[in-house]
Order: sequence, then C-alpha cells, then structure tokens
Amino acid sequence: MFDLLIKNAWVLTMDESFTEYKNGYIAIKDGKIAEVGENKENLESREVIDANGNIVLPGFINTHTHAAMALLRGYGSDNPLKVWLEQYIWPVEGKFVSYEFVKDGTDIACYEMLRNGITCFVDMYFYENAVADSVKSAHMRAVLTTGILDFPTPGAKTPDEGIQKTIDFIKEYKNDEFIYPAIGPHAPYTCSPSTLQKSMQVAVDYDVAYHIHVSETLHEVEDIKNRYGDTPVKHLNNIGVLNDRVLAAHMVHPTDEEVELLAEKNVKIAHCPESNLKLASGIAPVPKMLEKGVIVSFGTDGTASNDDLDIIGELSTAAKLHKGYNLNPTVLPAKQVLAMATRDAAKAIRLDKKIGSIEVGKYADLIIIDINQPHLQPLFDPYIQIVYSSKGSDVDTVLINGKVVVENKEVLTVEKQRVLSIAKKWREKILS
Amino acid sequence: MFDLLIKNAWVLTMDESFTEYKNGYIAIKDGKIAEVGENKENLESREVIDANGNIVLPGFINTHTHAAMALLRGYGSDNPLKVWLEQYIWPVEGKFVSYEFVKDGTDIACYEMLRNGITCFVDMYFYENAVADSVKSAHMRAVLTTGILDFPTPGAKTPDEGIQKTIDFIKEYKNDEFIYPAIGPHAPYTCSPSTLQKSMQVAVDYDVAYHIHVSETLHEVEDIKNRYGDTPVKHLNNIGVLNDRVLAAHMVHPTDEEVELLAEKNVKIAHCPESNLKLASGIAPVPKMLEKGVIVSFGTDGTASNDDLDIIGELSTAAKLHKGYNLNPTVLPAKQVLAMATRDAAKAIRLDKKIGSIEVGKYADLIIIDINQPHLQPLFDPYIQIVYSSKGSDVDTVLINGKVVVENKEVLTVEKQRVLSIAKKWREKILS
Ligand SMILES: [Zn+2]
Ligand SMILES: [Zn+2]
Repeated sequence: MFDLLIKNAWVLTMDESFTEYKNGYIAIKDGKIAEVGENKENLESREVIDANGNIVLPGFINTHTHAAMALLRGYGSDNPLKVWLEQYIWPVEGKFVSYEFVKDGTDIACYEMLRNGITCFVDMYFYENAVADSVKSAHMRAVLTTGILDFPTPGAKTPDEGIQKTIDFIKEYKNDEFIYPAIGPHAPYTCSPSTLQKSMQVAVDYDVAYHIHVSETLHEVEDIKNRYGDTPVKHLNNIGVLNDRVLAAHMVHPTDEEVELLAEKNVKIAHCPESNLKLASGIAPVPKMLEKGVIVSFGTDGTASNDDLDIIGELSTAAKLHKGYNLNPTVLPAKQVLAMATRDAAKAIRLDKKIGSIEVGKYADLIIIDINQPHLQPLFDPYIQIVYSSKGSDVDTVLINGKVVVENKEVLTVEKQRVLSIAKKWREKILS
Repeated sequence: MFDLLIKNAWVLTMDESFTEYKNGYIAIKDGKIAEVGENKENLESREVIDANGNIVLPGFINTHTHAAMALLRGYGSDNPLKVWLEQYIWPVEGKFVSYEFVKDGTDIACYEMLRNGITCFVDMYFYENAVADSVKSAHMRAVLTTGILDFPTPGAKTPDEGIQKTIDFIKEYKNDEFIYPAIGPHAPYTCSPSTLQKSMQVAVDYDVAYHIHVSETLHEVEDIKNRYGDTPVKHLNNIGVLNDRVLAAHMVHPTDEEVELLAEKNVKIAHCPESNLKLASGIAPVPKMLEKGVIVSFGTDGTASNDDLDIIGELSTAAKLHKGYNLNPTVLPAKQVLAMATRDAAKAIRLDKKIGSIEVGKYADLIIIDINQPHLQPLFDPYIQIVYSSKGSDVDTVLINGKVVVENKEVLTVEKQRVLSIAKKWREKILS
C-alpha cells in the first residue's frame, strides 16, 4: 500500500538519461519515490492524484537567494548600485533586520517559491533560525547559511561570532531531512583570507557546503586584484578555499584561466541571470563554463534585485540570453537548461543522492505543470515548451517529501491572506 | 448615464505627465473613456466594476507579431537558424498555410494575447482576411499587413499580387474601428527596391503605416551591403522609403549613423528582445535609440521564435537586458519601459489619438492587474512592480472598446476548449 499515487502523468524524470514516461505513474511511500514507470494496474494507494496527462518534473531548486529580502521587493530599483545599497537597502536592513523581519520576509518568499514550483532553496542571510522556522512551517527543503562578513552585521558583531553561530546552527540541524545547514562567508571582498579559511575549516569539519558570492561585478574583480594581486577565483585558490564544497553565486567575470580552475576544482555555480542583468553586473560566460564541465545551476538572488523568486523565469531568461549574447542559437538548449535547474542544482548543493530527479529512493519533491492551456499548445517538445513558453503560474501542484503543498495553483502551507498582511505591515514600517 | 464605471482603481494613465489616481475611477460611454479622475459620488452607470485598489493601465500594444505562427509554438526550437527555417518552419508553412490555418492559429494567439493584457497588435502574415475575422471575433484591435516578398508566398505569387491584395484589404477595412490595415513589405533582403518603393507609394496614397523587418541579423547587414553597397537603414533611405510611416521590427544592428537617421526621419521601432535573443540575432542598441529620441515599442515576434505572446515578458526582459548588457542600471527605468509598451507603442502605429493612454476621448482599452498577491507585495512603486515582478497571468480584467473581454483571469471572447482542440488538431496534421 502506497501513501500516494500520481497516475496519467507525463513524467520527465530528469535523470542522467532523460528517461520519460508519457503515460506514467509515480508511487510514493514515506515521503520517497517508491516506484516510477508507465501506468500499470492494481497499484494500491491511500491517495491518488490524476495528473490528466500533465507534465511531472522534479521540483525546481533555487541555489541562491536571500529570502527575507522579499520585504524589500522593488525597493529603490532602477537606481545606481551605490545609491540603491546606501540609500535604500542597507539603511532598512540596519534598522529592521531581526527574527521577526526574517521570519516574515521568508514566509512571503516561501509562498512565492512554492507557487512557482520551487521545492528547495539555498539561503544566505541573518537569523537563519527564523528562516528555518519559516521553511519548516512551509514544509519546504532548504540549505541555510548565515552571511559571515568582516564588519558588524545584523547577525553578528564579528566574523568569528558569525562562524560560531553557524557551528551552533549546524549542530542543531545536522540530521534534519528538510534543513541542510551550510557555511556562508559572504564574498572575497567582504571577508579576509582568514575568515574565508576559517569558514572552510568548518565546512570540512562538519561536512557541509560552502556558499559564497564570487566575481559578481567588475568592481569586485578590480578590488580583489588591487588588494591581493589576483582575480577573485585565483585569489580563493591561492588561499586554499577553492574545492568541490564551494557553491559560488554569480561568477559573472571569471577569466578563461579561472573557468579552467573552476572545472578542475569542481566548484559549483549559482547563475543568477536576472539579478546580474538588473543590477548591471554583466553577463556570465555560462556556455564556456558548461563546455568545460562546470556544474551550473540557477539562483534568483534576493527579491530586491530581481524582483521575483521564479526559477522558470531564470532558466527561460538564461536560455535566450546566452544565445543572443553569444550569437549562437544552439547553446543552452531546453533539455540542458531544465537539467541545470533540477539534477545539476542538486549536485551543486551536494544533495543529488536525495533530490533533483524522479528516481526510486529520492524524496518525492515533485511539481505538476498544467499544459492544458492555450499558451502551452500545440506542444511539440515538453522541454522546449516549459523553458520558452511556461510561467511559474502554470505550476498546478507541488509535492514536497510526498506531501501536497500546492494544489490547483493554491499554496496550502502558507496562508495567502496572512502573508499579504505581513507585507503591508512591513511596507508601512519601512516607509515610516 | 455611463455604460460602465470602474471605481476604486489605482489608475496609471500613462499620459505624457504620468498622471496617477490612487483612488480613481474611469467612466466609459460608447466604447470610449468619458471621464477619469479621483473617485467621486453620484456617478450613474449601467455597469460597475470595483477594482478593489488594483492597478488599471492602458492595454498593452504588441507592435510586431505573426499571430498564426502560434500553431508552430516551440517547433524546431534550439536549432541553428538555417535548420530551423529550412527543415521546420518553411516546409510546414509551405504545406499548410491557408485561410483555415491562419484563422485557427490567430484564434490561439488572440486567446493568449488577451490573457496577457494585450489589447492591440500588429500582424504580418498571409491571409490577413482570416486574421481580421479572428480579431473581430475576439473583439480586439489590430494593425494588419500581408507579408509582401519578391518570391512566391502562401499569400501571393508575385510582389505585385501581394501589393494588390493589400490595396483590396485597405479598401475593405479603411473605416473600421478595430482593424487598421497597413502595408507590409517583408524586409530589405526579401524585397527589391522597386517592391519597397511601390509599397511606400501605397502607404502614402492610402495614408497607412509601413511595417517591415529591418537590420535583424548581421547576416542581413552583410547581404544588403554586398547587394546595395550600404547598410539596411541607409539603403532604405537611399531608395526613399525611410519616413515617419515606417514601423521597423528588430533593428538589432544599426550603426551610430543609422540611429541618427532613424531619429531624424522619425522611424518607429518594434523592439523584440526575446526573439532577438532566442534566434541569436543579437542585442539591439535600445538605450542609444532612446537617447536620440527614437520611439521604441515592444513586439513579441511570432510564437515560433519566442515562444510566447506576452508584452510584460518582453518589457521585463528588456528592462533587465539593457542594464546588464550596457553595465548601467539606470537605462530603461520601469516608468519609461511601461510607456514604451503603451503610449509610445500607440505612436509607433499612428494610433496615439485613439489608444495608448487613459485619457478622455480615447478608446476604453484597459487592463486591471491583480496586485493583491504575495509576489506583488510589498508594493513600493507600481511601475517597478509591474515591470520586474508581475506576469501576464496577473492580468485579471481586460476591456476593449469598453467591453469586458477578460474577467477573473478568464478570456470571454475566445473559447478555451475550442482553441485547445484546434491546437491539438494542427499538431497531428503537422507531425503526420
Ligand atoms: Zn546574493
Ligand atoms: Zn517578424
């Protein structure tokens, strides 16, 4: 007897051989995928979802965000970066960031991510215990890091305090199925070599991922060159913190030599195309990284710099952007792009044994996309249709750990009216 | 007594001074806007829509598409351009394009455009009488052109036949409120100077717009240079067909001198960022064109090269793309981008006295965006929120000529189940 059976599904497993079941089923037991294949008779299950021929995919994984910044959605957009940070973002963060701010902001973010079919995300912010509480309550999965910086933050007065808080957090959640703690030194320009190295020691000691912003802007590249005599990736390598635990967000301006180094060291990338465009950081050399075998996944970055939390939006932007920028319509084809947002993203966060594809034994983190809509028909190729024609709003059903958390396009685990009131309350506070 | 009253609306008029009414109303009579302002008492109307504080905008105008190509959505995507055209698009068009194909394809396109808040579009295809029938039945507005080419097309054996069909079509619809005929010589590389000049004579004689693809690819630029000794825009100027009637789609590769020429001649641009990226044509110099005062609007291009019909998607992509590509976060700010998709688009199609902003005397072509959703809150600036956070699917209500054509996110004038069957029928035919 299974717990839940999804039948009549067009299953895109996103496994390494892109196995598909056109009239497929997925049987779920104890939160995991117990069976997957073409529809068959006599399957006994306590609950049944008829997918009606719709497409079932692994849930999307958002490998870089600052979820609580949903409270700053659109705040000060269109200004020069310095004005945006100094006159809008930092003053509000300095004044308001607290357990309450982070919990409330992350609740809004979780609602939006669930609505868009994101089942797991990587966060870097402060008060990660608040983020964890929000994630638990939304019944999502997340890799959580406290941003560690050399100057005082809302989370810690010193980098050592940030590291200690991370260790405490790791210990608290070490064996959790939903919360995966990691360490988050903010960036090479905000962390000294010593902070970066101490952080790596924690990653090794506790066997967790190392999440960091790297090579986001040309300004950063210049700054690191001036201070350390080398470009950011090489600098990280020089000080011994470039290895396969690293999930580097952005990576907009690596040199060719650095791309080789990323491949050699098996560094994972969270590519954030919409944030990089909107903040005018530039366009990352994704085709080159992919060609060298670097694992590239997608991140939304914080809502303030995007301004949404939608992986379909990111992958669709990326699929088009790199074709146009490189004058080559064959780079980032749809199949590859969907793999980047699912199974490659799982590799990027070291959870590829647990999530990222529809395979027996993995967690049942699944989405159903409603293809029975005029803007998704006629349908010649499901990968192409999802990448170029679908929207987050086409996600009809979301399951996490076998539990239905979005049904008929309604989020079940985060109350809509409550997050709307939260958003309005914080808007008043921020503007007052 | 008004016919329809929209009250409690956050009205962004998109007029030249960006007038806003935070608690506003719009009164409609005989299909036109009779009054607009802050809510007031004692307005008598036969019907009332309570906007509940949601945002009301002029309907979006899609200034370049080939609507019937909705039947080829995603067909052969991700292939090199030559393979895509020669092995996918052209064979199907050659075999199937007919009144039925065009009517069916345009019905799907109209459904999708209405759903995304597009109230008016510019089309270039064949069998424009079929497009007109579809537009009439969907209760939309459109500027329609028959593609004129020097080689035989599904519409005409010779360019002269195409021109004659255009003249007949112009005569039929000359005084229509919904269908605005125009002339559509396809491009400088598919039309001889003589065809381009004869077409312009028709535009002048019948006082209609002149819609053409110009400078879409580097290949085109080279080709025109080789054949005529000048780049495309200069070539059009040399032969006397560059003037304020011209609506040029794409304009990806104009030289600086050509941008000056576009401004001087008051040529209008249909910028198609997603198509240009997906087909790897390149990135148009939009900030430069805007700086010189060129009117730039947004087009989706055909669904086969995009693969959707969503102006919010285009303007959002453009707002981010040009910032990232030019490393400047202040170009294409949200307000300007929304103006490009509404009042500037109306100028681009010479209908700015009739549509494009919410002003007394203009047609009541209006959309209501449902901002009461977590992904659109908190809301600090309505322009920013629409451009960077909203989706076509957030359009709740659409009115065209004062008639409600989309209500509660359901399209009323095109039947969903019928277009879904049409799409499936054509998919079978195309694949058979
Ligand atoms: Zn970030
Ligand atoms: Zn076109």
